[in-house]
Order: sequence, then structure tokens, then C-alpha cells
Amino acid sequence: MDNWQHRNRPNRLERRFDFDSYGLTRDFLDQLGELSEASGIFPDISFGKTYVNITLRPESEEEGADLTSKDYKFASDIDGLFN
Amino acid sequence: MDNWQHRNRPNRLERRFDFDSYGLTRDFLDQLGELSEASGIFPDISFGKTYVNITLRPESEEEGADLTSKDYKFASDIDGLFN
Repeated sequence: MDNWQHRNRPNRLERRFDFDSYGLTRDFLDQLGELSEASGIFPDISFGKTYVNITLRPESEEEGADLTSKDYKFASDIDGLFN
Repeated sequence: MDNWQHRNRPNRLERRFDFDSYGLTRDFLDQLGELSEASGIFPDISFGKTYVNITLRPESEEEGADLTSKDYKFASDIDGLFN
């Protein structure tokens, strides 16, 4: 989890992943999509030809809502896809 | 092309697409990926569970660079995926 940046207001986790080709970027996005469907967590994702930025936000939109252990597990699973 | 917003500094085209489900969002992203590979145009894309935002920028990063007919054709092809 050291590779993720924890930011506040709202609480969120962010990480950027870089790839050597568009094919590798798409492979990663495909696996990430499967992880989302399995976990029910759908982060905000932005990407271009060779990068993917992921932002994980609390499920609740209430002010001060925090990420849960489920979110941290999801972030860790994403790291696993990349390694 | 009426659905795209043309913005300046830098010149770019933007459009948001909304979907009824994550499955439809992913189907659209898959088709968009094939279109990118076929055309060699890789826009900046951000998406969540049921939306996709696309930003098309000029290939050249020079100040004042403008979009080309190839970019407008690509935007029109994206509209075709959605309709």
C-alpha cells in the first residue's frame, strides 16, 4: 500500500500505474474490471495510451466518510495485478 | 458532432457518455479501445461505473496546435459506437 497516496477532503486513495504499451494498459484495465465486478467496488479511473490513474473514494458520500478495510483490500488486490 | 464540446487552450473536444450499467460501460470501453488501435488515436479517458468522459487533444503538443479532420472523424466514429 506504500505506493498509494492518501488524500483528504474527501478521504481517498490514489495511484498511477505506467505501462510500456497500449496493449499492456488494456490488459490491466480488463483485469481491473473483473476485480470491480467481483468486489462491487467501482473506482474513478482515468487512462491514456500508457497510464492508468485510479482514485478510490468512500462508498458513502457523507462528509468525513472514510475508506474501509474493504477498500484497502481492493487497493492491495490492484497492486497484485500490476506486480 | 453536436454532442461534443469544443474547448480552447489547448484546443480539445470533450464528450460525456452515460450508461445504464457497468456492463454497458465496459462494452463501450472495449469498442473504443478497438477504435483506438485501428486509428492510432489514444484520447484521455476517465470513467466510473456508469459514465465515460473522453477528451481528444491535438497530436502535436505545440501551443496553438489544432485538431485535424482525423480527430473529428474519430469523434464521429465514437458517436457511432454509442448510438
